[in-house]
Amino acid sequence: MNLRVRFAETDQMGIAHHSAYVVWLEAARIEWLRDHGHSYKRLEAEGISFAVSNLQIDYLKSAFFDDLLTLTTHLTDLRSRRVAFSYQIARGGELVARATSSHTPLTPTGKVTRLPQQWQHDLAKYCVKALG
Amino acid sequence: MNLRVRFAETDQMGIAHHSAYVVWLEAARIEWLRDHGHSYKRLEAEGISFAVSNLQIDYLKSAFFDDLLTLTTHLTDLRSRRVAFSYQIARGGELVARATSSHTPLTPTGKVTRLPQQWQHDLAKYCVKALG
Amino acid sequence: MNLRVRFAETDQMGIAHHSAYVVWLEAARIEWLRDHGHSYKRLEAEGISFAVSNLQIDYLKSAFFDDLLTLTTHLTDLRSRRVAFSYQIARGGELVARATSSHTPLTPTGKVTRLPQQWQHDLAKYCVKALG
Amino acid sequence: MNLRVRFAETDQMGIAHHSAYVVWLEAARIEWLRDHGHSYKRLEAEGISFAVSNLQIDYLKSAFFDDLLTLTTHLTDLRSRRVAFSYQIARGGELVARATSSHTPLTPTGKVTRLPQQWQHDLAKYCVKALG
Repeated sequence: MNLRVRFAETDQMGIAHHSAYVVWLEAARIEWLRDHGHSYKRLEAEGISFAVSNLQIDYLKSAFFDDLLTLTTHLTDLRSRRVAFSYQIARGGELVARATSSHTPLTPTGKVTRLPQQWQHDLAKYCVKALG
Repeated sequence: MNLRVRFAETDQMGIAHHSAYVVWLEAARIEWLRDHGHSYKRLEAEGISFAVSNLQIDYLKSAFFDDLLTLTTHLTDLRSRRVAFSYQIARGGELVARATSSHTPLTPTGKVTRLPQQWQHDLAKYCVKALG
Repeated sequence: MNLRVRFAETDQMGIAHHSAYVVWLEAARIEWLRDHGHSYKRLEAEGISFAVSNLQIDYLKSAFFDDLLTLTTHLTDLRSRRVAFSYQIARGGELVARATSSHTPLTPTGKVTRLPQQWQHDLAKYCVKALG
Repeated sequence: MNLRVRFAETDQMGIAHHSAYVVWLEAARIEWLRDHGHSYKRLEAEGISFAVSNLQIDYLKSAFFDDLLTLTTHLTDLRSRRVAFSYQIARGGELVARATSSHTPLTPTGKVTRLPQQWQHDLAKYCVKALG
């Protein structure tokens, strides 16, 4: 997905604040699910949320206000109780950041649950081995 | 209440972004309720939220990273279906911003509801006429 | 402009938090300037920022995660030391919020300055009287 | 440092959004510097910022609105061109999250620079080996 860095996402260093990337990664993940036939909104309506259990970000270059960024998402793990993604954030041909996230399916009361079998079945073909 | 301007709340103008004030006003409102014997967390647990229906902010001076700000809150209207507050944000003796907010009590499904009578009763004595 | 409500913009009421609207209005304002031939990024590079002096928002309907919102912006005042905008936020044909903002041109050190004459000249034809 | 989870920091899962932790870690880091005799605000005034180069967070338990959290910060690396911290976020005796961050000192134009010698000298005694 593409997104434009918002003014509100900058800080007084004159760059996009590092917390904004976390929000962008989430938007990219949700868009990836939509592009692959699954609505995160509907998953939540069915009582399952993807709680983030781990997040890692390498900030390689600064991103600036009004930059048009491209986020590329890969599904790197897909088990009944763990889903993981990797991401690249680029500006033109330049890599701005690399990131990974892991998620645990939770019920509305916060209990660990299983990813619906249909989701596992449908998404399995898109799952790639995480690159080292 | 007092709060310190966070680095993440600044923007590339080198000042606190104007959306941060909205978050501060909410924190001040919740703290005001706590100081006057009522927990907003408990109100929500009882199934009532204060949806914001109107917000007005006059930004008078810039606020900066690390500034220690003082927020003063007044309850200015208290009816079964409308609650309103006014606020002042100051840095030392200097007024940084003035604001007002209006709220509608909502149920978890988003229907307008009544403020609990106990809340109306308890808070009535703190309600001040809005100043012009 | 159109934008999709991000998950990070929701709160535990299950709706978009009212501070997110402030960020959307800013994005809409910057996009409006771009659509009318002026880059806010370039204005800042020339040493002028639009400090927000007043903000008013009427929240009419809740906005929800994944909603596709349409923001309509109008320039309602254009003077050397004051610029103002009005906004409508809609979901399909339904009005979600109405807002206005006023801005003061500032130098990088925070002094009031004049809007460049070229900007005044170019934008004058798009300025509409504020509706009551 | 202690901080209270703000309502604006929650999301529709009913928990603090995972991006809020990033903002808290930054506040804890800045407070740690202050507690150890160094003002990040002054460092920036001297023309040096700590750009975040890597961030890792393990989310162990959900944090909720109004929770009073305690953040413990350790300096784990201190070189002329790299500074690193580790963090624990706890609620009472319960560990909510663990995190690490790495930083590169940058000039206002974004060039890598050296940490002032005085800072290195003063902070060296507080630097602990990162735990495995």
